Amino acid sequence: MALMRKSLDVFFRPESVAVVGASPKREKLGYAVIENLIRMGYQGKIYPVNPNYPEIQGLKAYPSVKELPEPADVGVILVPAEASVEVLKELVEIGVMHVVIVTGGFGELDEEGLKRQQEIVEISKKTGVRIIGPNTTGIVSTPGRFSTTFTRGYIRPGSVAYVAQTGIFGGLVSSLISTREYFGISRIIGLGNKVDVDDADALEYLENDPETKVIIMHIEGLKDGRRFMEVARRVSRKKPILALKSGRTPAGAKASYSHTASLAANDAIVDAAFKQAGVIRVNDYVDLVNYAKVFAYQKPPRGNRVGIASISGGLGVMTADACENVGLEIARLSDETIRRLREASPHIIEIGNPYDIWPSISKVGVNTAYKIGIDAMMEDQNVEAILAGFGPAEGFELENPSLISDASKKNPDKPIVAYATGDWQLVERTREALEKLSIPVYYSPENAAQALAIMYQYSRIKSG
Amino acid sequence: MALMRKSLDVFFRPESVAVVGASPKREKLGYAVIENLIRMGYQGKIYPVNPNYPEIQGLKAYPSVKELPEPADVGVILVPAEASVEVLKELVEIGVMHVVIVTGGFGELDEEGLKRQQEIVEISKKTGVRIIGPNTTGIVSTPGRFSTTFTRGYIRPGSVAYVAQTGIFGGLVSSLISTREYFGISRIIGLGNKVDVDDADALEYLENDPETKVIIMHIEGLKDGRRFMEVARRVSRKKPILALKSGRTPAGAKASYSHTASLAANDAIVDAAFKQAGVIRVNDYVDLVNYAKVFAYQKPPRGNRVGIASISGGLGVMTADACENVGLEIARLSDETIRRLREASPHIIEIGNPYDIWPSISKVGVNTAYKIGIDAMMEDQNVEAILAGFGPAEGFELENPSLISDASKKNPDKPIVAYATGDWQLVERTREALEKLSIPVYYSPENAAQALAIMYQYSRIKSG
Repeated sequence: MALMRKSLDVFFRPESVAVVGASPKREKLGYAVIENLIRMGYQGKIYPVNPNYPEIQGLKAYPSVKELPEPADVGVILVPAEASVEVLKELVEIGVMHVVIVTGGFGELDEEGLKRQQEIVEISKKTGVRIIGPNTTGIVSTPGRFSTTFTRGYIRPGSVAYVAQTGIFGGLVSSLISTREYFGISRIIGLGNKVDVDDADALEYLENDPETKVIIMHIEGLKDGRRFMEVARRVSRKKPILALKSGRTPAGAKASYSHTASLAANDAIVDAAFKQAGVIRVNDYVDLVNYAKVFAYQKPPRGNRVGIASISGGLGVMTADACENVGLEIARLSDETIRRLREASPHIIEIGNPYDIWPSISKVGVNTAYKIGIDAMMEDQNVEAILAGFGPAEGFELENPSLISDASKKNPDKPIVAYATGDWQLVERTREALEKLSIPVYYSPENAAQALAIMYQYSRIKSG
Repeated sequence: MALMRKSLDVFFRPESVAVVGASPKREKLGYAVIENLIRMGYQGKIYPVNPNYPEIQGLKAYPSVKELPEPADVGVILVPAEASVEVLKELVEIGVMHVVIVTGGFGELDEEGLKRQQEIVEISKKTGVRIIGPNTTGIVSTPGRFSTTFTRGYIRPGSVAYVAQTGIFGGLVSSLISTREYFGISRIIGLGNKVDVDDADALEYLENDPETKVIIMHIEGLKDGRRFMEVARRVSRKKPILALKSGRTPAGAKASYSHTASLAANDAIVDAAFKQAGVIRVNDYVDLVNYAKVFAYQKPPRGNRVGIASISGGLGVMTADACENVGLEIARLSDETIRRLREASPHIIEIGNPYDIWPSISKVGVNTAYKIGIDAMMEDQNVEAILAGFGPAEGFELENPSLISDASKKNPDKPIVAYATGDWQLVERTREALEKLSIPVYYSPENAAQALAIMYQYSRIKSG
């Protein structure tokens, strides 16, 4: 490469943005992009560009890129594919060196689109302009209150960065997280056709991004596997990387080829490469979200010995199965812990791990039973992580969830995950209460155990 | 066995029930059992038995079993374990031959409890009285508007029977289904310690139960594996049996032993035995519910060739992955189908399977796009099942879901399953609309594909 590649940083906190193809018509993408910027409370200057309107959504509009009052930090291209190469050239001419090309109709569409895409690649290489896209929703940066996306809906700020391959799916997953989860998002980077900025670049940026604690990715095709591996290996020592690599079966790969013309790698090789690079692979976006959650809320354990508090004997058995099944060990509780748990339970009950908390609830009530149970396990040196089960029912709800989160805060290196089942309204209420206190809640012991196992897997990745 | 064993039928539609240990105090189980009977609209006679009250919840109460005006069809024992053997004897003496012993404190507790349990076994053997329990919530029969359970909450009537091992867990799962799902329950049979009625008996009853289409089971221990196998093999040809067998790992088996004293079988043997008997095994109660749903709503496919309608190219790839991963084939669409889908899409789009429905939505709108897509696949001889994806967003919701269910009703031997993701409120609205029309909705292509794969598995079990 002839030129020193510019940092991506400006994409995430630009002081000004030119939106080429801005529109006053509600059904247009160029309307939604401006609307999202205003709704997010973007503090920089917005320059709508459109030759047909003097004003768009209350903002002065400019007839062309050349007439902009300054080279904006970021340019967003929303005009049709045929016009976009020209617009890109004009942006670079006036000095805009960070551009998001939202427009589709390039390499993913046909021969002609591919030619246009190659022109863009050339411009980027020759001038050093950094380009995200084309064919993408682009960037969301909650700390920068900045977005180039046309997807509507509030994105909650938080510590999870999402590197997305495709537009519609990326938008759906962001929407899923924002409307269903209590954790938030730091950055979304929608890579689209990756003419310039690719997965490795995104990881490199996120490596030192102080707003990001966890990285989740959806990858359909990698252009430069070797570089991705190099960067991922370095970044994964600092922050967990969870990746959904689709096109993993012959059928999926075939679908991927007709969809993005990206050639599939042999999936066994991808698998081995991810392992070597410390990338945690998942096969389902629901898992991607579920496991992002555990990293957003808790720290990895030092070992794999789990203390289990279950809401019934039967669920204790299932939880033990679930833990063993994913390589976790059932901790041998210390005598002191047994003593404390016995004190909180009716005298006839045998105490062990899994610890059936129900008899204790019947003796000392829900709040006290969980407090004693979880405190005892947190203070037990034989226990390195806790899996707590809840079965909320009328009259048996946890009234003071901070009793649990207090113990968790005092022992940050002992992660605690929970599951809840039963009456759905009460389950969701329990989830909200606990997750707002950073205790992740799943719907079954299996899911909770998997989340713990992935944290344990990461603690080994981190230590090399 | 000396006596001909009486049918279980009476348990599910008794004309009278004696509740021994009924109570006017709201916090007692004996209150909740009567309350549930009244709330369900039980049409038979209820005889509360309690020496301390002349009336309980508006019903005339009887001081003892001996003073009952008739031998009730079913007796429910709620008195403490120490008194329950005597009560059982009295019930049998007056001619009550179907008894549910709700009380705990038997074999699951200690030596003394085990002795009491053996006495019960003897009584059952000697007199032929059928006993469910002890240590159970017992029976729910929605068609009979009858229940012996103390778990509160409405149970929606439907076609799924649930054979439960343990009380609290069984109650939580019933509650989960009733508050979260749109399908309903025909019978719940909580087996508890299984002194008489066991898993095989329950299956045998459900085999010819016209109200039951699907059987789900939670099994921790089997007393008579051989008989269970024999019965299951026969019943599974008529109705799908889904079973969660816990205590499947050494850790789980150990927990199970200390919880119910049931000895674990070698899990590989259980696995092989289930396979041979046509029992579909799941490891998570969430899956138990999810797969019950697909059988409650749809019929098994004749083959494994799937037509996929996805809401984006990226999701199409993931759906193809998900199908191939569980052994489903991506159908080769007929020329006629391709022609119809092409007509509904912008001309530049390539048509294939997975079929990306998004371009068609942008051309003809959400309703028409799904109608054309699903009709075409339903009428394609190369397609044996359909997996449809929804990504509801503001302005892009399916307004007329019956367009899809109509096609499904016309082609009952081609099951259709759906997934939806994105904005959670819209996802849940989509799920409600479609499930009320018998189209099961999951949250990811992986889950939907698994549901189809299990139906396909069952179609092979059924055909032997």
